[in-house]
Amino acid sequence: MLRLAAPGFERLMQSPSLSATFGGGEANVAVSLANYKIPVSFVTRLPDNDLGIACAKELRGLGVGTEQIVWGGDRMGIYFLEAGAVSRGSKVIYDRSHSALSEIEPGMVDWKEVFKDAAWFHWTGITPAISESAALVCQEAIQAANLAGLTVSVDLNYRKKLWRWGKSAREVMPGLVQGCDIILGNEEDAAMALDIHPEGVDVSKGKVKAEAYLSVSRKIMDQVPRCNKVITTLRGSISASHNTWSGVLYDGETLHRAREYDITHMVDRVGGGDSFMGGLIYGLLTYGDDPQAALDFAVAASCLKHTIYGDYNRVSIEEVEKLMGGDASGRVSR
Amino acid sequence: MLRLAAPGFERLMQSPSLSATFGGGEANVAVSLANYKIPVSFVTRLPDNDLGIACAKELRGLGVGTEQIVWGGDRMGIYFLEAGAVSRGSKVIYDRSHSALSEIEPGMVDWKEVFKDAAWFHWTGITPAISESAALVCQEAIQAANLAGLTVSVDLNYRKKLWRWGKSAREVMPGLVQGCDIILGNEEDAAMALDIHPEGVDVSKGKVKAEAYLSVSRKIMDQVPRCNKVITTLRGSISASHNTWSGVLYDGETLHRAREYDITHMVDRVGGGDSFMGGLIYGLLTYGDDPQAALDFAVAASCLKHTIYGDYNRVSIEEVEKLMGGDASGRVSR
Amino acid sequence: MLRLAAPGFERLMQSPSLSATFGGGEANVAVSLANYKIPVSFVTRLPDNDLGIACAKELRGLGVGTEQIVWGGDRMGIYFLEAGAVSRGSKVIYDRSHSALSEIEPGMVDWKEVFKDAAWFHWTGITPAISESAALVCQEAIQAANLAGLTVSVDLNYRKKLWRWGKSAREVMPGLVQGCDIILGNEEDAAMALDIHPEGVDVSKGKVKAEAYLSVSRKIMDQVPRCNKVITTLRGSISASHNTWSGVLYDGETLHRAREYDITHMVDRVGGGDSFMGGLIYGLLTYGDDPQAALDFAVAASCLKHTIYGDYNRVSIEEVEKLMGGDASGRVSR
Amino acid sequence: MLRLAAPGFERLMQSPSLSATFGGGEANVAVSLANYKIPVSFVTRLPDNDLGIACAKELRGLGVGTEQIVWGGDRMGIYFLEAGAVSRGSKVIYDRSHSALSEIEPGMVDWKEVFKDAAWFHWTGITPAISESAALVCQEAIQAANLAGLTVSVDLNYRKKLWRWGKSAREVMPGLVQGCDIILGNEEDAAMALDIHPEGVDVSKGKVKAEAYLSVSRKIMDQVPRCNKVITTLRGSISASHNTWSGVLYDGETLHRAREYDITHMVDRVGGGDSFMGGLIYGLLTYGDDPQAALDFAVAASCLKHTIYGDYNRVSIEEVEKLMGGDASGRVSR
Amino acid sequence: MLRLAAPGFERLMQSPSLSATFGGGEANVAVSLANYKIPVSFVTRLPDNDLGIACAKELRGLGVGTEQIVWGGDRMGIYFLEAGAVSRGSKVIYDRSHSALSEIEPGMVDWKEVFKDAAWFHWTGITPAISESAALVCQEAIQAANLAGLTVSVDLNYRKKLWRWGKSAREVMPGLVQGCDIILGNEEDAAMALDIHPEGVDVSKGKVKAEAYLSVSRKIMDQVPRCNKVITTLRGSISASHNTWSGVLYDGETLHRAREYDITHMVDRVGGGDSFMGGLIYGLLTYGDDPQAALDFAVAASCLKHTIYGDYNRVSIEEVEKLMGGDASGRVSR
Amino acid sequence: MLRLAAPGFERLMQSPSLSATFGGGEANVAVSLANYKIPVSFVTRLPDNDLGIACAKELRGLGVGTEQIVWGGDRMGIYFLEAGAVSRGSKVIYDRSHSALSEIEPGMVDWKEVFKDAAWFHWTGITPAISESAALVCQEAIQAANLAGLTVSVDLNYRKKLWRWGKSAREVMPGLVQGCDIILGNEEDAAMALDIHPEGVDVSKGKVKAEAYLSVSRKIMDQVPRCNKVITTLRGSISASHNTWSGVLYDGETLHRAREYDITHMVDRVGGGDSFMGGLIYGLLTYGDDPQAALDFAVAASCLKHTIYGDYNRVSIEEVEKLMGGDASGRVSR
Repeated sequence: MLRLAAPGFERLMQSPSLSATFGGGEANVAVSLANYKIPVSFVTRLPDNDLGIACAKELRGLGVGTEQIVWGGDRMGIYFLEAGAVSRGSKVIYDRSHSALSEIEPGMVDWKEVFKDAAWFHWTGITPAISESAALVCQEAIQAANLAGLTVSVDLNYRKKLWRWGKSAREVMPGLVQGCDIILGNEEDAAMALDIHPEGVDVSKGKVKAEAYLSVSRKIMDQVPRCNKVITTLRGSISASHNTWSGVLYDGETLHRAREYDITHMVDRVGGGDSFMGGLIYGLLTYGDDPQAALDFAVAASCLKHTIYGDYNRVSIEEVEKLMGGDASGRVSR
Repeated sequence: MLRLAAPGFERLMQSPSLSATFGGGEANVAVSLANYKIPVSFVTRLPDNDLGIACAKELRGLGVGTEQIVWGGDRMGIYFLEAGAVSRGSKVIYDRSHSALSEIEPGMVDWKEVFKDAAWFHWTGITPAISESAALVCQEAIQAANLAGLTVSVDLNYRKKLWRWGKSAREVMPGLVQGCDIILGNEEDAAMALDIHPEGVDVSKGKVKAEAYLSVSRKIMDQVPRCNKVITTLRGSISASHNTWSGVLYDGETLHRAREYDITHMVDRVGGGDSFMGGLIYGLLTYGDDPQAALDFAVAASCLKHTIYGDYNRVSIEEVEKLMGGDASGRVSR
Repeated sequence: MLRLAAPGFERLMQSPSLSATFGGGEANVAVSLANYKIPVSFVTRLPDNDLGIACAKELRGLGVGTEQIVWGGDRMGIYFLEAGAVSRGSKVIYDRSHSALSEIEPGMVDWKEVFKDAAWFHWTGITPAISESAALVCQEAIQAANLAGLTVSVDLNYRKKLWRWGKSAREVMPGLVQGCDIILGNEEDAAMALDIHPEGVDVSKGKVKAEAYLSVSRKIMDQVPRCNKVITTLRGSISASHNTWSGVLYDGETLHRAREYDITHMVDRVGGGDSFMGGLIYGLLTYGDDPQAALDFAVAASCLKHTIYGDYNRVSIEEVEKLMGGDASGRVSR
Repeated sequence: MLRLAAPGFERLMQSPSLSATFGGGEANVAVSLANYKIPVSFVTRLPDNDLGIACAKELRGLGVGTEQIVWGGDRMGIYFLEAGAVSRGSKVIYDRSHSALSEIEPGMVDWKEVFKDAAWFHWTGITPAISESAALVCQEAIQAANLAGLTVSVDLNYRKKLWRWGKSAREVMPGLVQGCDIILGNEEDAAMALDIHPEGVDVSKGKVKAEAYLSVSRKIMDQVPRCNKVITTLRGSISASHNTWSGVLYDGETLHRAREYDITHMVDRVGGGDSFMGGLIYGLLTYGDDPQAALDFAVAASCLKHTIYGDYNRVSIEEVEKLMGGDASGRVSR
Repeated sequence: MLRLAAPGFERLMQSPSLSATFGGGEANVAVSLANYKIPVSFVTRLPDNDLGIACAKELRGLGVGTEQIVWGGDRMGIYFLEAGAVSRGSKVIYDRSHSALSEIEPGMVDWKEVFKDAAWFHWTGITPAISESAALVCQEAIQAANLAGLTVSVDLNYRKKLWRWGKSAREVMPGLVQGCDIILGNEEDAAMALDIHPEGVDVSKGKVKAEAYLSVSRKIMDQVPRCNKVITTLRGSISASHNTWSGVLYDGETLHRAREYDITHMVDRVGGGDSFMGGLIYGLLTYGDDPQAALDFAVAASCLKHTIYGDYNRVSIEEVEKLMGGDASGRVSR
Repeated sequence: MLRLAAPGFERLMQSPSLSATFGGGEANVAVSLANYKIPVSFVTRLPDNDLGIACAKELRGLGVGTEQIVWGGDRMGIYFLEAGAVSRGSKVIYDRSHSALSEIEPGMVDWKEVFKDAAWFHWTGITPAISESAALVCQEAIQAANLAGLTVSVDLNYRKKLWRWGKSAREVMPGLVQGCDIILGNEEDAAMALDIHPEGVDVSKGKVKAEAYLSVSRKIMDQVPRCNKVITTLRGSISASHNTWSGVLYDGETLHRAREYDITHMVDRVGGGDSFMGGLIYGLLTYGDDPQAALDFAVAASCLKHTIYGDYNRVSIEEVEKLMGGDASGRVSR
């Protein structure tokens, strides 16, 4: 997806210039994994024009496999971004209708081939939101992944400005998540995609209680028998410039909690959840039997994302581990 | 329409930045007329989001009436532009499918109201190219304009990358031009839109003969009885950086010829034809009984356009008249 | 007025580049009103050159009427701006002497004609500061507005670097405000323009007490019998990057107080007071009999201004109302 | 003087950005001399604010003495520049009225002190154009220079948009040039400043004949007995992008001619004449008894100026001599 | 290698900004081949820091294999570039001493492994110029390539500002080229690297005669028995903005000549020779038995390079073939 | 030294652009002194190429004497900078090996001549870190300064990424500081350069106790009999965006403490220590017998540095004194 952002904190088209980079939920997760040296391939559909090709080039450069990309369709999805500050929130204008991906059809991807040597499949709730056929392809992929014995993870990622093709998230998502082993979301995602609500939490207060998410996690696990881990990102929106950030992971037994980071001067919060997911997958693969460590890595990695411009989380394992280790002083390395 | 151009002579996405301005055939003509102090209103359909609003703001600032804009639809048409140099031609990627304008429907514009105090209606061959319903609205508008007694002009403007909705230009355009008093095009437009061909002209040689266009003009007039003026823009493409530029106007009696300008260091050739049309309408309105003067103004105005960045021809009557008067020395005014 | 600002937080001419936009007290108020869909016209004098014309074009694009602009004079007023940070305050260099506006003369504006269909006239204390003839034109305008029965408002806007033509603010302003119904200022304005002082307030402490302004408001009303509302903006300057912001409105009976906003990461504070005035006029016109609502709208609107680059407050009614409604969390809208 | 230029070939304020550098006739000559290692000091008046100080810092950095600058006045002179291309000429908007220099008064500069160790005084026709008092200071300086036995040179530099203080160039300049040993100008300068006209030359044709300047040079020498060298710059304005450039020098005996350079892709022509003068002074000081060599150096130096952005001619002696030596092939040095 | 270029046509450090891209002779050839879908791997040594990693990422994104890169050393080679115009040539400042590559040692690359599945090895005369150990590694690589039966090509690429480690090009290059099948150079390269001189050619005149190169080619073949093709690039330096460009290929029997292109508005000439070599290798691999076609492809490809910013030739086979086919009109593709 | 910084908060080479300015410990101190009107000369070695010359030009412009610069060597030292935010620290990549300065040799500077009219010599621990010969030149300079009776000051400035030539800081620095009257450092510098450790201080906590430095200061004085003042900068690294800043000065009798500034929105912290040293030297020269005032000036000056982009502290005495006087409210000056 092409991301076109107004410069600095300007409103869209205040100046005749846009910062043009690539991003999008699944691509962002893939880049995180590539940064952590996990072999990863991005499966999507891109138009065979200079924009689609440039997107694939960048991903390949960052270490993400692009061999599985299906080429075709008319246009690349676009989103316009205006960065907020203090009491003015960031604003996204989606221009994704009729994108190459939205017009993907079941059968276009040979999932059996794609999953041949794979161990993990990750998808997000954004894909089924953009079109009916994209939702069908998600279903197709999840079934193939289940058949092939892959771990399947999902980021619920509810986007109210999408979901315009006829069905609502609540009609589609519950079916899709049935094939998932690991489910990530925040309070709004659980409510809007799965109709499961945290109790006693007022997110507009900028303060959330980890405890409240235990019941949500349990409800999700009840609904999705296959699921063995529910992860909730905890964002406290003090202002558009200042958030707190943490997460909890419920593994059916324990609600693991992570340190809460105080992100006082956000550089770019888009992709925060994706960088959490990328960190989590790395963590689960690396510290397999230590969900706490995986959660800590995910939270630290995504904390760093908020300091980096663009959708991608351009950090290394060493940088995440340094922050996990407690050094958030931001001293100059020289 | 949003124009997203790579910086300088870079290829698209070579750098993570795009110059973002507005433009498009009819808007460009409207801006030219507003620059020449002709009251003008732009009739189009724009999405009611920050991009559509910014486009209307810019046009209003430049003096173009925006009261007749129909608000609605999902997205604004976009085109991506890469500026060529020397032997590398400029490149356009259209991303106009499903734009607000492409989904305009007959009945959305109250043409009677729109034409109430108007004397002239101008349209281009780009609009019927983008969708069937847009073609129908063109037809609707031309009929209403004819009924209301307006002068109707068209720029044939053939674009091979558009015209993808099912019918070809040759199937649609001949019917539409029947309602036109004034028809402008270049050699390719006449061939592709009306199936009328100049004789003995090889445009790839960078040299065209005005004489050959007399027969084309006559054929057009034969096909379109209402038409009383056929204007042909004459571009000699020596290279992407260097063109010659002129035009001829046939009024049924005489083939008026204009001076040929040598545009040795083009700044931006997009909108060249539109600036010609804007100059021509101004010229015909101002020097009504002197088609030669109108043509000379149009050619000089559009010669200047090639020195100005962006789709719009940001010049004044005085600047055009100075060039018409023969001063092409480009001396500093100080 | 042309605003030439150093890039980012650079000192002036640290790099060979200036951000060039337009602004100025009265223009800023006009743009706010246009954003809120209030018909508004800007009366000023601009030089008939490319700079003056560009300024008018931008205002017209933003929806401000420019028909009343008087064209003439030699130059456009300029101010150079250097944005401060933390303990380094922003810095303004005025270059307004001999501007077209400073050389305006009584008689140049046909105020009777200007005020024909108008209901409100707003002026600021910056205009009489720049030249004697500008002060005379202010007087002329206020008298005409009073005669025509308009509501007259003023932002006292004391600028110590202006007021160099011979008389001091204290000699001129008290006479001019006699014709005003609504008077806005901050603590320094009241002191320097009207010689009226708040008691027990040390603004350099970054903390101000709303209570102290009751006595000031009363004194102003005593001095200006016509005045029915005195509004005081309350800025707590914790640092150049962090301010608190609020305001009080005294209507002769009650001192209405507004919520205090904590603007922790200011993007641009120039135009903050103007955006307050724009919000206030909108509020008084819209919630006429509810001064508290008008004040709340004004404070919220101008709080948002601090997050927007440039002099103009580029926000919509909906955005202001969302903030008034209590949502300052700055969440992403997507 | 502050030079504010639109980016690239944009029209002024087409984008909200201006390139901000310093320049001006005399400063440009001084920088050229400093580049050639000639000790040089710039005598002017600058406002004691961040702009004036930045200007002096840049000059000092480039090697120009700034000790003689008189500090005071309200504002720095500004000119706005829009670069032309092909048939659209560059455009200058002066904003120099009431600048610090325009308000300089006789007596402010201690010319005796300034000229103590000096051998050469150079001034231009721009200074007497901006105000009566500046013209008087020119007169004062020339007289002091004559008294002190300095060589005095002038660049006639006629600017029709200046000369607005009451007298015309023809009324003022003839008197001032009486104190000059060396007079430089082009065809327009001689006509407008001294009422001396070349014969049989139509500059708008883009071709000038050196021969015609012999009579002009002789007439000037007749009018100014002190004058021993008249130099004429020969610019053929083929277009705003393409000029030819040369010069002739008459020393009372011979009309020395220089090679004509074909400047096919001009980068920036402002300061072309100043760079010629800088080269000439260097040449005359260095090759004293060889006016042909001095002329050749001046023409080559100023030819290079047209390839350099900004007012200043940022070239070295070696680069000029390489071009003088005939190597105009523009090969890469690596 | 990191390329740091002044913006536009500015002199180095005229503004506080540098365009930062990657490039270098061998990398440029590799990128060309990747663009033409030829599997290619870049063998070099890069420092294991953010700069080296970013360079490898970009190459990988562009399709160049980076698995053979040897990581180590202290610093990345840098060159500073100032683009010339008209009579002012471009200027390169090398800062390559002690780069990771310059400190490469024999044995660091396992050439047997590198060449396992390879068919072609290309090197340039820049590598042995930077250090003695780099020259030794060249020798090592050429020997291994010869042993493994690869085609070996060289671009002589003489750079007078390099070759500072003790031996001259003439002492080192003749030995190295003994292992080469295909030798490319221009007139200066042959002279400086191999002491072989064209006759009757004055390159500073901007005109070269292809005929003169026949004798040079023959002399090279006499010296290097293994060599079966000698290719000479023919650059006519009319100015820094305008070159002619062509080439000849001698295959031991025939001197094949290519069309001469007139590059009237160069965008960036650095990498021109490399893009020729990339085109030539592609051509020889593709049109194996038709050296004329390979030469034509190489000349057209490198003609296009001069219109593209940066070291890399970002063009496709289709674009080169279009130009080869004779269409140099630079028309807009839309 | 050339400083090449990624734009904004981007990671290095995230965009193809670098901000290019000059800086470095000793140069930064010199610029501070020049800003405070203290005559100062910078002694270093620069390569005689466009980069070295541009560096000297900038320093001369800023008022620093450049006559003592020794010209020679191959390259200019470079450092690449990536600005951190919140929990991501800034990152420096040094590319200083083999710089002109690193290859300086004893005897190249005529210290007797340099110190002829000087009263103070300042050096930093960075110079002996870069090469053995640079360390020897430091020793040579300190001895000459001692002989000539100058006050000698040092900023210990430990940089772990330098010190790679064979000896450690602890082996070299103790000898060099023997010639120093005034020693400045922070907790890490004292530990790494002099093996002297503060007690009970954990700097990673972001809180330091001034008290602990008394013992360190005393130990330094014990080791260095000549030393009469030890100054410690106190930085509390709350995050990369938010630091506290203060300092203590021990004069053998009293530990003077300064106000602690809360730098909540850092613009650029590189050069913070240098700006402290520049302020301190000015303070000691100006308020000689009042070390508290000198310390207060130094702390306020360097507090302001954190709000200014680039290595240099571009502030005036007036601005520092305003902050010293307690006005940190950052109000707009207009």
